[in-house]
Amino acid sequence: MAQVITDRRDVDFILHEQLEVDKLSKHEKFAEFNKKTIDMIVSEARNLAIKEMLPTLKDGDEQGCRFEKGEVKVPDSFHKVYKLFKEGEWIAMCDDPKWGGQGMPSSLSLAVKNFFHGANFPFALHTLLLHGAGKLVEVFGTDTQKELFLKKMYTGEWGGTMLLTEPEAGSDVGALTTTAVKNADGTYSISGSKIFISSGEHNLSENIIHPVLARIEGAPAGTSGISLFLVPKIRVNDDGSLGKFNDVVCTGIEEKMGIHGSPTCSLTLGGKGECIGTLLGDENKGMRAMFVMMNEARLDVGMQALGCASASFMNALDYARERVQGRHLQATGKDAPGVPIIQHPDVRRMLLSMKSYTEGMRSILYYVGLCEDMVHISDDADEKARYQGLIDVLIPIAKGYVSDRAFEVCSDGVQIYGGYGYTKEYPQEQLLRDCKITHIYEGTNGIQAMDLIGRKLGLNKGQSFKDLLDEMKKSVQAAKSVDALSKLAAKAEKTIDKLEETALHISTTIRSEKMMSVFSHAYSFMDATGDAVMAWMLLWRATAAAVKLEKGAKKKDVSFYEGQIKSAQFFINSVLPITLGKMDVILDNDDAVGEISEDSFGGK
Amino acid sequence: MAQVITDRRDVDFILHEQLEVDKLSKHEKFAEFNKKTIDMIVSEARNLAIKEMLPTLKDGDEQGCRFEKGEVKVPDSFHKVYKLFKEGEWIAMCDDPKWGGQGMPSSLSLAVKNFFHGANFPFALHTLLLHGAGKLVEVFGTDTQKELFLKKMYTGEWGGTMLLTEPEAGSDVGALTTTAVKNADGTYSISGSKIFISSGEHNLSENIIHPVLARIEGAPAGTSGISLFLVPKIRVNDDGSLGKFNDVVCTGIEEKMGIHGSPTCSLTLGGKGECIGTLLGDENKGMRAMFVMMNEARLDVGMQALGCASASFMNALDYARERVQGRHLQATGKDAPGVPIIQHPDVRRMLLSMKSYTEGMRSILYYVGLCEDMVHISDDADEKARYQGLIDVLIPIAKGYVSDRAFEVCSDGVQIYGGYGYTKEYPQEQLLRDCKITHIYEGTNGIQAMDLIGRKLGLNKGQSFKDLLDEMKKSVQAAKSVDALSKLAAKAEKTIDKLEETALHISTTIRSEKMMSVFSHAYSFMDATGDAVMAWMLLWRATAAAVKLEKGAKKKDVSFYEGQIKSAQFFINSVLPITLGKMDVILDNDDAVGEISEDSFGGK
Repeated sequence: MAQVITDRRDVDFILHEQLEVDKLSKHEKFAEFNKKTIDMIVSEARNLAIKEMLPTLKDGDEQGCRFEKGEVKVPDSFHKVYKLFKEGEWIAMCDDPKWGGQGMPSSLSLAVKNFFHGANFPFALHTLLLHGAGKLVEVFGTDTQKELFLKKMYTGEWGGTMLLTEPEAGSDVGALTTTAVKNADGTYSISGSKIFISSGEHNLSENIIHPVLARIEGAPAGTSGISLFLVPKIRVNDDGSLGKFNDVVCTGIEEKMGIHGSPTCSLTLGGKGECIGTLLGDENKGMRAMFVMMNEARLDVGMQALGCASASFMNALDYARERVQGRHLQATGKDAPGVPIIQHPDVRRMLLSMKSYTEGMRSILYYVGLCEDMVHISDDADEKARYQGLIDVLIPIAKGYVSDRAFEVCSDGVQIYGGYGYTKEYPQEQLLRDCKITHIYEGTNGIQAMDLIGRKLGLNKGQSFKDLLDEMKKSVQAAKSVDALSKLAAKAEKTIDKLEETALHISTTIRSEKMMSVFSHAYSFMDATGDAVMAWMLLWRATAAAVKLEKGAKKKDVSFYEGQIKSAQFFINSVLPITLGKMDVILDNDDAVGEISEDSFGGK
Repeated sequence: MAQVITDRRDVDFILHEQLEVDKLSKHEKFAEFNKKTIDMIVSEARNLAIKEMLPTLKDGDEQGCRFEKGEVKVPDSFHKVYKLFKEGEWIAMCDDPKWGGQGMPSSLSLAVKNFFHGANFPFALHTLLLHGAGKLVEVFGTDTQKELFLKKMYTGEWGGTMLLTEPEAGSDVGALTTTAVKNADGTYSISGSKIFISSGEHNLSENIIHPVLARIEGAPAGTSGISLFLVPKIRVNDDGSLGKFNDVVCTGIEEKMGIHGSPTCSLTLGGKGECIGTLLGDENKGMRAMFVMMNEARLDVGMQALGCASASFMNALDYARERVQGRHLQATGKDAPGVPIIQHPDVRRMLLSMKSYTEGMRSILYYVGLCEDMVHISDDADEKARYQGLIDVLIPIAKGYVSDRAFEVCSDGVQIYGGYGYTKEYPQEQLLRDCKITHIYEGTNGIQAMDLIGRKLGLNKGQSFKDLLDEMKKSVQAAKSVDALSKLAAKAEKTIDKLEETALHISTTIRSEKMMSVFSHAYSFMDATGDAVMAWMLLWRATAAAVKLEKGAKKKDVSFYEGQIKSAQFFINSVLPITLGKMDVILDNDDAVGEISEDSFGGK
């Protein structure tokens, strides 16, 4: 039977043959997570995804969320899945069991999310935001806040969100105007309006806990005067029971291009002066708190995008094997039979491109998860810092680059179905529509690119980016020792060397008078870095596969391993020459973008 | 006031300063179309587009088409626009006035379509298909067929479509199974089922005329046994009055990703044995007839895509000038004011990219129109053939490349709006959804790429592609003589030379044992050729602008002309280095796509 959502064999390959995640079980923290347990968890998640979540994808899109008299109803079919999600304890997979978490490695949780997000990420989004909100309580909450809220959040009894954006404060968070006035009892009265709040209101749970960014009366302007508050939809009494309504009113939900199963809410806080919150963390340190959550949130967005891409690829592959149309290009004679379209060169090109991108991007995301695991278990401060640096540098790639390429994969996924791909009869067009949001939220991809060159490139005096290059070079060396891969390794090495040169060029010019021009090439640099990271991952994978082939693999594995070598071959020979061109552009540092006058854009 | 849909200044620039379309008026056929008349027609079309069509765009998307008991209702607001469209005689702009046409140059009609398609192409699509059907009657019809049908089609009194696709015959037209049985009176009884018929049924007109591809009993299999028939929805009596229903039944319409204002119909012909058609053209020559219409249809699709891109760009530009968010990157001090996002480097990058693509692609499409005009007025057979060759070679670019890049422009157009771009509050997301169909219909873009290398590259023994390269080189020479452009010209020249090398490589290997591998690089070749054509157009435009600047342009024109040079500078310096990489890939001719086994794609 055809695989759906995500290729299980590939998931297993990364976990066990590329990253060897079960080695983490040598460490006490992850002692339970041996290979057998890992496989069991992936199987369980996959079952839930295929049998329960995937069937709700279309319903989520068609019925969508409905706003009625201040209440938001999620698609009917979501309720059962949410119940199963709670029962399976999938919300706080990596967190402390004390609060309802499962304590599993992050790398493993990404494999789980790969199936969940591929099955129906607008549904899964409800649980991501909830987890993020819970994490803020775990990290910054007082004992009382934790006792009152945390377990009910991590177990999904209550919902959770993040109230950040305002109409005039989108990418520019520092411009927000929601205010907090301290009351005599130490609580704060919150008032303001927030928009674009995913899961800001819904009927999946009886209460929703909102971490809210607001400015305490008299605090400085800009980001340095922002504090974080915990604001429940319904107040919580000291004994944990529910109290009165907390004046958090949903005024509407957005009509959107996609993710119709996820309500994007506008909320008014304290319209009647009755919205009470408690400070979460220190005064004026709200932005720092946000940054704690940002890596996880951005990695999740990358996984949402990959989920779409990977489902689109699985569907397209299956369709291309079944759909008979046209004769083989080399067929002779008028009576040549029709062939499945997988035999047509341009369809194969799309499929192999989809394959190599989804595989490489899957490895990138799981690898970031592994780095998180290493941060957690490492006893050595330098090593911890090194892994944290790798994570920080890779996050813009995991979010920005991955979502860009995922959208292209989804577009090809429509294309392979021809006219049918444009219809709602197949999931392909929904996956494309849903995927588009991943370019935008949790920091637009433009912001990811600015983050990469503006903050990450110089992180730890440039050491973290250098560490990334070193990791790449290690894989290149390993590949060089495999006969079948030595030429590909040399090509990848050339790209990595040029990336180093390009990074140096940016680092040395970014603080100069050429600053504006350098930033106008930020996007190209994210693109080029992403290509290089992709080549690294595919080469690493191909090396693991080639070694298995050399040793004599089982028959059913041979085609899989050969496919790994083909993915690397395709990407390195058909994409990297273009990457070199992208880097030439950056090195040339043309400044048409900066030089053109606003009037010269026309349109007036 | 901000321009909407399409920048009028740019339309005028191409018509009068780049292509000098009014020179056509020296020829008798276009004598009426002097500069003044051209400007008047563009103004009239622009008014209709802005005042009447654009306001129906959202309604067309939201209300969409409704299928009720075999009838299709178009969005309510379309009826008024259709009436105005008929009154303005916009359906048969370039056709013989004898049949209700306007006899205008094709180049001018493309400027008109630029506004119409940018305003609401799902509406305009109704009229395009109608025109195409009319053209088949004009070219292949008997006098009787013309008398009965043609004028009523060209004037919009009756609708028209094209019945081609069947469930098992999409890209593979030769597989169709609709049959035609000859009756004693010379008519044919038609029976079969067709799908994906745009405007196959609607309530804009009382009759719809369907050219239908079908196989006459006993005709050969494949494309060589296909004939074309004229099949009205309601039979037409000899005196032109309407007779009885002709057994053409709409069985449903597709639910689609976009173009909701355009009904995509399934039709059953002769379900009760009562569907009568007449042969249009010769028996078994139906495919040849289709090819006559194909260039026009594909050029129209390119214009639909450009319409979306151009509207998306105009909207984004206006938004970026108004939306204040974040401080200037080089601002110092905490109190620096917020700036319109057009001042941020990455937003400027997207805007300049959108600008250069929409401008260059607009020039490509109008230029193909000019070539058509030259075919019509040229007295010299060689010259005629030369222009026809240029058209044929450029059509895959005008359809495939243009629609690919237009979709990317529309994606950036969503991005510039941030979260708002994903909502239905603004038109950006609809333009992106609508645009996606242009990758698919009238031959998928994969088919365009195959057409380019498989048929067009070798057309007239390769002379036509060589003619295209010669035209490019002419513009490069002209640009070299302008100081401000000489460096850009040299870079463009390098790309054109390499394109020639790449084309030669493909031509010499396409019939070899490497055939499959060559075809797997077809898409890259379309891409690279498109980039080169873009560079040519932008350089040509910049040359025209630079010459005006040297002579001393009016103040209000200076920024426009300078903007032309910036578009060329951006594209040549920031895109062409990547194009060179694409050509390296083709020349390297890696065959991972061909070599990978079907099992190695995985997914089982």
